[in-house]
Amino acid sequence: MRLSQYFVTTRRDLAKQDSINAHLLLKAGYVSQVAAGVFTLMPLGWRVARKIEQIIREEMEAIGASELLMASLQPRAIWEATGRWQDPNLREILYVDETGESCFAPTHEELSAWHLASAVQSWRDLPIALFQFQTKFRREKRARSGLLRGREFLMKDLYSFHIDQKDHDRFYEQVAKAYQKAFKRMGLETVRTKASGGVFSREFSDEFQVICPTGEDEIYYEPKSQTGYNKEVISQVPEPEKQKLERARSIEVGNIFKLGTKFSQPLGLMYANEKGEKHPVVMGSYGIGITRALGAVVEIYNDKDGLNWPATVAPFMAHLIDLTDSKAGEKLEQELTKAGVEVLLDDRPVAAGVKLVDADLFGFPIRLVISPKTMEQKTIEWKERSSGKVELIKYLEIVKRVTDYQRQQKST
Amino acid sequence: MRLSQYFVTTRRDLAKQDSINAHLLLKAGYVSQVAAGVFTLMPLGWRVARKIEQIIREEMEAIGASELLMASLQPRAIWEATGRWQDPNLREILYVDETGESCFAPTHEELSAWHLASAVQSWRDLPIALFQFQTKFRREKRARSGLLRGREFLMKDLYSFHIDQKDHDRFYEQVAKAYQKAFKRMGLETVRTKASGGVFSREFSDEFQVICPTGEDEIYYEPKSQTGYNKEVISQVPEPEKQKLERARSIEVGNIFKLGTKFSQPLGLMYANEKGEKHPVVMGSYGIGITRALGAVVEIYNDKDGLNWPATVAPFMAHLIDLTDSKAGEKLEQELTKAGVEVLLDDRPVAAGVKLVDADLFGFPIRLVISPKTMEQKTIEWKERSSGKVELIKYLEIVKRVTDYQRQQKST
Repeated sequence: MRLSQYFVTTRRDLAKQDSINAHLLLKAGYVSQVAAGVFTLMPLGWRVARKIEQIIREEMEAIGASELLMASLQPRAIWEATGRWQDPNLREILYVDETGESCFAPTHEELSAWHLASAVQSWRDLPIALFQFQTKFRREKRARSGLLRGREFLMKDLYSFHIDQKDHDRFYEQVAKAYQKAFKRMGLETVRTKASGGVFSREFSDEFQVICPTGEDEIYYEPKSQTGYNKEVISQVPEPEKQKLERARSIEVGNIFKLGTKFSQPLGLMYANEKGEKHPVVMGSYGIGITRALGAVVEIYNDKDGLNWPATVAPFMAHLIDLTDSKAGEKLEQELTKAGVEVLLDDRPVAAGVKLVDADLFGFPIRLVISPKTMEQKTIEWKERSSGKVELIKYLEIVKRVTDYQRQQKST
Repeated sequence: MRLSQYFVTTRRDLAKQDSINAHLLLKAGYVSQVAAGVFTLMPLGWRVARKIEQIIREEMEAIGASELLMASLQPRAIWEATGRWQDPNLREILYVDETGESCFAPTHEELSAWHLASAVQSWRDLPIALFQFQTKFRREKRARSGLLRGREFLMKDLYSFHIDQKDHDRFYEQVAKAYQKAFKRMGLETVRTKASGGVFSREFSDEFQVICPTGEDEIYYEPKSQTGYNKEVISQVPEPEKQKLERARSIEVGNIFKLGTKFSQPLGLMYANEKGEKHPVVMGSYGIGITRALGAVVEIYNDKDGLNWPATVAPFMAHLIDLTDSKAGEKLEQELTKAGVEVLLDDRPVAAGVKLVDADLFGFPIRLVISPKTMEQKTIEWKERSSGKVELIKYLEIVKRVTDYQRQQKST
C-alpha cells in the first residue's frame, strides 16, 4: 500500500488528552473524535480493530460458537419481559428512540433468549453458543479515556445455552481459556479477576484485567497464578488470603457471566429433557470490548516517540521509506506484498525527517529505509520498533528476513 | 463444518410472508424477524452478508478507496449546519435519541465532510475516497418485503472528495463500473438508471437496478445498453427515445450521487489551489445496500424447493449428506475442508428425507450424498442445485471435481 493512496492524517496541533491512548491514536490519525465518547475509526485504526476481531473470531470458532449478527434496534416488550426496561440502572444507560418504543440494545441477553425460545425444543438441541461483533451504544455520562469508556463502541458478545449448570460451568471454563488465549495473541496478559455480577446477574462473574498503571480499575491479585479479585469483592476475601495479594491498577478488557435462568425463564426459553419434562435453559454471556482492547494495547505498547504495536494487531508489518530518487521503494513494496507482507510505502512529498518521525509515531513493527548510502552498499536499513535496534540487511535478503520475522512474531 | 455444531433452525410452521426473500430466508433459517423491518442475520445469513461485503471491499480497494468505520451516533450540530436536521423529509426517517441531541445517522455525508475539514489543506491532499460497512437505522414507516426495505440494515457507503467537478466525474464513472462489477460477481445483472437526486442532491443521480418481476421499483430501459430511467424521471425523456424503452419491475441495489459543494460548503471543507486560493471540495456519495442485495439475490435465485445461491455468495459450497453408518461423511468433510472447500456435513439425527429436502431449501451449489449404494460402487452422488442434474462421481475424483467446479463457478 502507498501512503499517498491511503487516508492517514497526523495531528501536530493536538490539545492535551485525558489518556495515552486518546493522545497517541488521535495524533497518529488512527481515530478521530466526533463527540464525548464517540470516535470514528480512521483507516489505520479500523485495520487494527479488524485484526483484533479476527483473532477473537478464530478463538470463538475453536470452541464451537457460531457467528451471527443480531438486531440492534429492539422493541421494548422483550426488555419489559425481563424487567430490565423498568430497571433504573439500565434505563440510565439505554439509548431509547424518541418514540420511546425501541432501544438500541447495549447487550443481547434478551434477544438471544427470545430467538432461541422458538428454536429450541429438546435437550438434543443444546448446547448452543452464538457470538457477534457489533457496534453498541451506551449512554455513558462519564465517557472518558479515549477508547476505554465510550458511548459508542465495538463489542464481541457471546451467549451460550445449556441443559444444566454443570454443562454451563464446563463451557464457561472453555470460554475463560479462549479469552485469555485471544488476549495473549493480541499482546495482552490478563488476570482473571472475581467480580460481582453487576447489572447482569447476582452471582460472581469473572473479569479479564490487564495490569496497567493508567487503568481506572483496581485489582488485588496473586502474581504467580494471575488470578485475583476486583475492588468491589475484595472485602469478602478472608484476611490470610488477602495478605498474599498485590494491588494494581488495571483495565478490564473482557467479562463473563453465569446467568442461570434469569433470562430464559421470563422469555419462555425451555427445553424438554429425556423424560419429556420442560426445564428452563441455563445461560451464560461473555463480552470483549474490541475498541477497549485496542485502547488497552496502546496503553501498554507505547513510548515517548509513539505507538509500538505487537505484530499480530499492527495495521501494517513494515513501514517503508525510500529517500532515493529511484524506484527501489516501489519495487520492494511490490516484492514484500507478493510475499504476503503488509507494507506501507511512505511516498508522500514531505521531508525525510517527517517520514522518520511518523514511522515511530505509527508504530509498525519494522521500519525499512532505502537511502543513497544503503543503495551504494546494496543494503536496506532495518529498525525494529520495539527494541529500537538498527541493522543493515543485504538487499537480496530483505524479503526473506521480513517474512521470517513476521512468522516468528505472529507465532509467539 | 458439521451441522450439529452449527446453529441453523428451519421453520416448517411459517405464516405467509409478503415476499419471496422473507419467506425463503425465514423458512431456511437464514434470518429471524425481530420487529417490522428488523431482522437478525442468523449464522447462514450472516455468512452470505460477509461474502457480499468481501466482494464489495475488493472492488472498492481496486479503485483506491480506504476502508474506515465512522461514528453512527452523531451530534445534531453537524446536521443543523447542512440544514438536514430541520428538513422534514429527513427528520421523518431519522432515529433521534430521547434527549433530542443525537441521531443514529442513516448516511454519512455530514460526518465525512466534517472529518475532512480538519484533514484537507491543499489540492495535493485530494482526491480522497473513504468507504465503510455499517448498520444503518431508518424510521421506515413502510417497512416491508423482508430484507428489501427495513428499519435496520447493512450498508456499504463510500464518499469521495475532489478538487473540481471534472475530477469527480472521472471518479464517479469509476465507481459506476466498480458497482456493476461487484453486483455481477454476486450474480446480479444491473441496469444503470437515471434518477432524481432525492434527499441528497438536486442533480440527477444513477441507480443500479436489478430487473425482477417482484421488485417494487419501475424502470424504463434499453435492453441492449442496459441503461434506462426510473419512473420519476421518465417524463423528462423525449418521446422518440421513449419509444425504444422497455418497462420492467426492478429492485434498486445501489445508487450514486454527485453532491457538488452542498455539504463541503456549510461544513467548511475547503482546499487551497496551486495559487493558494481557497475553494470548496467537490463531493460524491455512493451506496450499496448489503442486506438489500442479499434479498435481491434471493428474489432472483430461487425455485419451488428453496434457495439457489450463486457460488460466489453461497454460505457453503457443498451440502454433504452421509446416509451410511460409516465415517465416510466425516472423512470427506475433512478432505474437502483441507482442499479449501466450505462444506456443511448434515450430521443431524433426522430422517434422510428431511436432509434431502433441507439441502434444496438451503440452496448450496452442490449436494453430495453418500449412501450404502454409492459406497458399494465407490462413488458419491453429486447434484448441482441450479440445474438439478444428478451424477455419480468416483470417490477418488470427488475432491478434484468439487474444487474444479468451485474455481470455475467463482471466476465467472
